[in-house]
Amino acid sequence: MLLQTPESFKSRFNVEVRVLNEVIEINKTAKTITIRNLVNNNEYIEPYDALILSPGASPFVPPIKGIKNHLTHSLRNVPDMDAIIALIDKNKPAHATVCGGGFIGLEVAEALRQRNIKVTLVEFAPQVMGPVDIEIANMLHDELEAHGVQLKLGKALQEVSECEPEDQTLTLTLDDQSKLTTNLLIMAVGVKPEVSLAVNADLEIGELGGIKVDDYMRTSDPSIYAVGDAIESPDFVTGDSMLAPLAAPANRQGRLAANVIFGAQETYKKTQVTAICKVFDLAVSSTGLNEKTLRRKAMPYEKVYVHAASHAGYYPGAHPVTLKLLFHPESGAILGAQAVGKDGVDKRIDIIAVAQRAGLSVVDLQDLELCYAPPFGSARDVVNQAGLVATNVLKGDECIFHNDHLTTLNEQQILVDVRGGNEVAKQGLIPGAINIPVDEIRSNLDKLDKQKEILVYCQVGLRGHVAACLLTNLGYKVKNMTGGFKTWQLASR
Amino acid sequence: MLLQTPESFKSRFNVEVRVLNEVIEINKTAKTITIRNLVNNNEYIEPYDALILSPGASPFVPPIKGIKNHLTHSLRNVPDMDAIIALIDKNKPAHATVCGGGFIGLEVAEALRQRNIKVTLVEFAPQVMGPVDIEIANMLHDELEAHGVQLKLGKALQEVSECEPEDQTLTLTLDDQSKLTTNLLIMAVGVKPEVSLAVNADLEIGELGGIKVDDYMRTSDPSIYAVGDAIESPDFVTGDSMLAPLAAPANRQGRLAANVIFGAQETYKKTQVTAICKVFDLAVSSTGLNEKTLRRKAMPYEKVYVHAASHAGYYPGAHPVTLKLLFHPESGAILGAQAVGKDGVDKRIDIIAVAQRAGLSVVDLQDLELCYAPPFGSARDVVNQAGLVATNVLKGDECIFHNDHLTTLNEQQILVDVRGGNEVAKQGLIPGAINIPVDEIRSNLDKLDKQKEILVYCQVGLRGHVAACLLTNLGYKVKNMTGGFKTWQLASR
Repeated sequence: MLLQTPESFKSRFNVEVRVLNEVIEINKTAKTITIRNLVNNNEYIEPYDALILSPGASPFVPPIKGIKNHLTHSLRNVPDMDAIIALIDKNKPAHATVCGGGFIGLEVAEALRQRNIKVTLVEFAPQVMGPVDIEIANMLHDELEAHGVQLKLGKALQEVSECEPEDQTLTLTLDDQSKLTTNLLIMAVGVKPEVSLAVNADLEIGELGGIKVDDYMRTSDPSIYAVGDAIESPDFVTGDSMLAPLAAPANRQGRLAANVIFGAQETYKKTQVTAICKVFDLAVSSTGLNEKTLRRKAMPYEKVYVHAASHAGYYPGAHPVTLKLLFHPESGAILGAQAVGKDGVDKRIDIIAVAQRAGLSVVDLQDLELCYAPPFGSARDVVNQAGLVATNVLKGDECIFHNDHLTTLNEQQILVDVRGGNEVAKQGLIPGAINIPVDEIRSNLDKLDKQKEILVYCQVGLRGHVAACLLTNLGYKVKNMTGGFKTWQLASR
Repeated sequence: MLLQTPESFKSRFNVEVRVLNEVIEINKTAKTITIRNLVNNNEYIEPYDALILSPGASPFVPPIKGIKNHLTHSLRNVPDMDAIIALIDKNKPAHATVCGGGFIGLEVAEALRQRNIKVTLVEFAPQVMGPVDIEIANMLHDELEAHGVQLKLGKALQEVSECEPEDQTLTLTLDDQSKLTTNLLIMAVGVKPEVSLAVNADLEIGELGGIKVDDYMRTSDPSIYAVGDAIESPDFVTGDSMLAPLAAPANRQGRLAANVIFGAQETYKKTQVTAICKVFDLAVSSTGLNEKTLRRKAMPYEKVYVHAASHAGYYPGAHPVTLKLLFHPESGAILGAQAVGKDGVDKRIDIIAVAQRAGLSVVDLQDLELCYAPPFGSARDVVNQAGLVATNVLKGDECIFHNDHLTTLNEQQILVDVRGGNEVAKQGLIPGAINIPVDEIRSNLDKLDKQKEILVYCQVGLRGHVAACLLTNLGYKVKNMTGGFKTWQLASR
């Protein structure tokens, strides 16, 4: 890579690094590996006491008709990047298409836009950035479009046809039969574990296609270890096996395998899938399980949203952080969190990731004592706020509802927008709502039928909470929409 | 203040706020308070079921000769600030003196420099920013001087004399009899709890001068609660009472008192003293106990230093974070942490503050799974690194020594600088050291007497660790200096 050379590794650590030497076979019984020297094609055998497999994951390129052409690239390593840059320098493409809206797809799209190349992003799912849920991803969709990335969501690439070679142009056909002309195609639909060596050695492979390892990073052969993107690792919340091609867990796994080989009794502490991506001016980050996964696994959960300033609003440079917190509806255990915003996103997810790992519940998030000075945070930080809101819900001090309930309003419910009149004039009401600003509720109680359920909302949820408390104290049945109008807008994009 | 008015509080929360009304007496038996209307001087009595005292803390101004003059101000609230600004606008002072190098003193010094006023900072202690230890504060001293703040450390103000009134000039005499001419004097030596009401009501006052409360924020009278800067709160690590005038704990205490009054069984979760301050381009932050306090309380501790990039070094905008981690030498319990740097300081202290609160040890810090993408962090974050280093020490995998041992080198020790020759040429050796770059140790073993103790150091500690491993494996007795030359430099300023 870039940080070390075989020579530096030798002189610093006395470790011999053989580049351009490929291991082509493992003999478990003899405890040897067969290696091919790629320079002279000679093959030779080396013995091992312990063997660590760290082959990583390779870009998955689906078998699409016409996909093999000189204008289509995937991006795994520095030579791949050099090839793409060389192609850009030579062809000066006016337009590029990125297929796949995960970490790599988004970073490539941004890099291409910074070179002033028009970009279309094609993503099979209805959203980019699979680790977060769609309402969070919708902020990214806005950001991508604001920076000139054309989005084709819920679309798949079906066929690629090359025009005349001198055109340096491809015609792409999507699964809705729409066509797209482009000068560069980056395939970034995902990665798959590199398991060929392991398969050939009859090492156990998991259901998801990664090398199976135990808590000590041992494969089904006790002398062979495997680490990194090639393995399946246990999910922190469920313990289920999963593929998590992330640098930080790979780092921990490599270190652990070495320690175990030298006699340590340490075990791997599972993977939370804490991740972050820069998308133009936004950061998006998550840890733990998302709502899609919780639904798929039919796990009980509740969720709250907070939109709060990254630091004290009166100090320059504050930006809203949108935080979604998922938790167990009875125990309050932290199941997952997602955040998006221009500033302070990494910090909030890190804080929650530590809390989750330590076994804290959402109740504990209220009392976390975090750095506060106006340039850095608030006396009641975004994370504290999320903890307060979740605790209110957990303890039954506040009933909440979610924006998706708004599609099933009935006659026995009154939807009340408690924002100020000027906000409503600017942004409009949610269909079916009446507007009574929070500060005017006490003088407008005649408009609220005590027999009905009152559903309140404000811009982000805080004034809705105040309104809900007020009305609950007066004997009304009230629910507050968590995350308010802003969350509804994000979810309704 | 700025965020609410009596009217907004009334309409939003139906809470009556009476400004310009001072409570002058509490009658505990009758459960009444006597209030003076400061507009018409009328006194009247109100009953209470529960009473919450939140009088805060006021600036402590020592009884220095001549201190009462129109050019001397302290800064507690917005009117104080307005008065200082008015004086600056009127007098256009060329020079200001700030007495006290805590949060307020440092922020005022920075604000004055931004108005291009020359500033001298006088601090009685040998360092600014008491919550951190001196080697960390030394980075602030450099930063302050680099921004034109003249430092008078270890000095106290002894006398103030006013020149002719039309001069708008004060002459300050310090305790070393040096004199200083200044046009504005800001007194920011500290705050003391406002306890006069509580004292007159015979409520129990703690040894440190704050109102004594229990875990429910109740004073010695069960119907009277007290919160905020006026109280003593229990230290998270030791449980000892202390004064911690911080916004975030005050926020939690106020909320808790209200909940308890309404029947909640919650208790206060102690104060870690997590704090942060911006000092020009640096942030300095800490949580838990510092080394000064650990020494004073004669508590066992070990410490490690890490200097690591705020995010991946190859991505623009990375700056070193200097992190000091204090822990129990047997259990590995996190006792405290301090960090200073241009970027990512708040995040690292928040992470450690959560870990400390959750009862994690330094061993757990290794495996925290934090956000990683090059703009935000490293695959092995600063906090992970500190955890790895501390764990090595805790488990006896590495012996370390501290820079203060360098004053007591003996004949049976060899001090080896393992940095590269060019670094040594630029920065010099620590007196008494020989230079053997880490990558050349294996070929220079003849220079190292196996009978002696080898003390190695590098720039920040990492190559020293590699050298220590290498030599330990070869049978040498080796210790590595934690934090390396950089920490030694900071400590030796």
